[in-house]
Amino acid sequence: MKTLPAIAECAQAHIRSMSPYVPGLQPQEPGWIKLNTNENPYPPSPKVAEAILAEVDKLRLYPVPDARPLRKALAKFHGVDESNVIIGNGSDDTINMLMRVFCGATESAGWTLPSYSLYPTLIGIQNTTLLSVPFERNMELPIDAIAASGAQIFFLTSPNAPTGTAFSNESIAALLERYEGILVVDEAYADFAPENAVALLHKYPNLVITRTFSKSYSLAGLRVGYGLASAEIVSLMDRVRDSYNLDRLAQAGALAALLDQDYHRMTTAKILATRASTVAELRSRGWFVYDTHTNFVFTEPVNARGEKGPTVGKSLFDHLNKNKVLVRYFGSHPFTASFLRISIGNDAEMQALYAILDQWK
Amino acid sequence: MKTLPAIAECAQAHIRSMSPYVPGLQPQEPGWIKLNTNENPYPPSPKVAEAILAEVDKLRLYPVPDARPLRKALAKFHGVDESNVIIGNGSDDTINMLMRVFCGATESAGWTLPSYSLYPTLIGIQNTTLLSVPFERNMELPIDAIAASGAQIFFLTSPNAPTGTAFSNESIAALLERYEGILVVDEAYADFAPENAVALLHKYPNLVITRTFSKSYSLAGLRVGYGLASAEIVSLMDRVRDSYNLDRLAQAGALAALLDQDYHRMTTAKILATRASTVAELRSRGWFVYDTHTNFVFTEPVNARGEKGPTVGKSLFDHLNKNKVLVRYFGSHPFTASFLRISIGNDAEMQALYAILDQWK
Repeated sequence: MKTLPAIAECAQAHIRSMSPYVPGLQPQEPGWIKLNTNENPYPPSPKVAEAILAEVDKLRLYPVPDARPLRKALAKFHGVDESNVIIGNGSDDTINMLMRVFCGATESAGWTLPSYSLYPTLIGIQNTTLLSVPFERNMELPIDAIAASGAQIFFLTSPNAPTGTAFSNESIAALLERYEGILVVDEAYADFAPENAVALLHKYPNLVITRTFSKSYSLAGLRVGYGLASAEIVSLMDRVRDSYNLDRLAQAGALAALLDQDYHRMTTAKILATRASTVAELRSRGWFVYDTHTNFVFTEPVNARGEKGPTVGKSLFDHLNKNKVLVRYFGSHPFTASFLRISIGNDAEMQALYAILDQWK
Repeated sequence: MKTLPAIAECAQAHIRSMSPYVPGLQPQEPGWIKLNTNENPYPPSPKVAEAILAEVDKLRLYPVPDARPLRKALAKFHGVDESNVIIGNGSDDTINMLMRVFCGATESAGWTLPSYSLYPTLIGIQNTTLLSVPFERNMELPIDAIAASGAQIFFLTSPNAPTGTAFSNESIAALLERYEGILVVDEAYADFAPENAVALLHKYPNLVITRTFSKSYSLAGLRVGYGLASAEIVSLMDRVRDSYNLDRLAQAGALAALLDQDYHRMTTAKILATRASTVAELRSRGWFVYDTHTNFVFTEPVNARGEKGPTVGKSLFDHLNKNKVLVRYFGSHPFTASFLRISIGNDAEMQALYAILDQWK
């Protein structure tokens, strides 16, 4: 019979030594202004609740295993074939599938720094070598470095998080002409941007685009994302996909949200208007703010004494936290440690934020 | 730029050569008597719909990442600490986590044959060597073979699918005294059995129990399962768990179902009564039926000419299918090819089944 210390020895060495991904705080008690995980300040389309209610009666039955109706609707929406669409339990699930298809202990996988810190975790679970390509502060796409990386798969967040900046299709195509691995463009925030890479799919079979219903469709609580890729890549992903990865309510709710594009346009327009005023407000304080194509801003605060830098960034994060405003602070990287990432809330939330900024010294 | 044939070459070799798991048919059109995937014939507790409705308003916000309220409630229910509980997007998700923690290309993982055919798929995705331990037709636990297998992790379904037979805690404890790897007892059907292995958890740190809300709680469409294990194993599983693996509605719905034990007892009692009459009915036809501790029966049909065997089993499957009754037939194994697995429906569905059996020649 085994004793406790021996159990840990049973786990794979790379799992024993890894740390889990730490998501942004999700406080459950009321009273917080929550601007830390880029949730949508507006509720989802009323059609979502209707669709979920209609589905509740069928919960005793398994869902459609491959979420085919949602695949079909997304294919139509994006002008691709349904063989080019796969559904994930959040876009995190699609990223996870890609890692399991393409990478093991003998491959390497790349990401840009700073971007979505889940990639290194998922790369680590596969015991795959992590290649980090740093951005310069100008946030230009490091085409040469990625093309030369030799990574089997490379994750590019565009528009980027946490900076909010986007990479043009021209630059992504230039990268695809040279990079020989699988390029994953994580477009979680693409609905807030003027351009996206879907038009490049037909030309580049090594391009994968991932999307989510968590941001622009206001469905972070429902866990639905998807991937767009060549039929060959989708077929490979389906082999490692959990056979019932999306429950009935999530399938029905996401489909209803997708089909209510009028509502989606309306809430997105409101967020873009608030975003413009937020950027103007922060710049009027003399703070650097990246041009953003997302539902958040990345800004370098300047205190009353004209100081900026990691200590100042952390000081504002603490001040906001004390006043029950949650934003995101990435202190572990010298580039990001001077900045705060602030989600675009509704206008009242942003006004409340400004009032608390006014009290900061 | 890569061309299409080269894309497949990018995938890991073991993924390229594997086949995906094929779940039971989920016809979407009405008119079928669906006795093929062990769904519950009764709807979930009315409290589930109420809890889901209350949660719909919060869908714009991310769920609790680790489903803590559900972990706490399950810990209380089973008399264990909450550090002993992990939640999965279906119990399939917990099995997947276990594989990712404990097995890679240099390990081996075992299962009994016949049992749940998802295990070989999940073992294959990890490029882990598959060890198959066959049952004899008497369905006794092959303790010697499992103990001697050398498998890093071993999956035992108890009560077993597709036979419905259960292994006693005495025999599982005897195995745990000798087996030196991680023993996963998949108790998807335990609520239909008089005994389960939870009482063994405190003594054997290498024991993991997996459970699901899909069967006895009538929530196959919601995708919720869980694992019970030592805190050390749960902590390892949390490292590879998708950080938001369970959506808000699934967390709320499963919690409501768990807390309505009166309803759970009532529907389970109805299924056990129908199960008893089903076993009696099939045996009255002279068919062998395994003693079942699940919500299905595994039976070896005998035709009007007194014949049984693979051809006869397949013939009845086809006859039922033609009459819009779906059951499960596992033709690829000599042991199971003479049998059909029939889920326990409601009494009207079982009467309809018998009428169609009467017409079979």
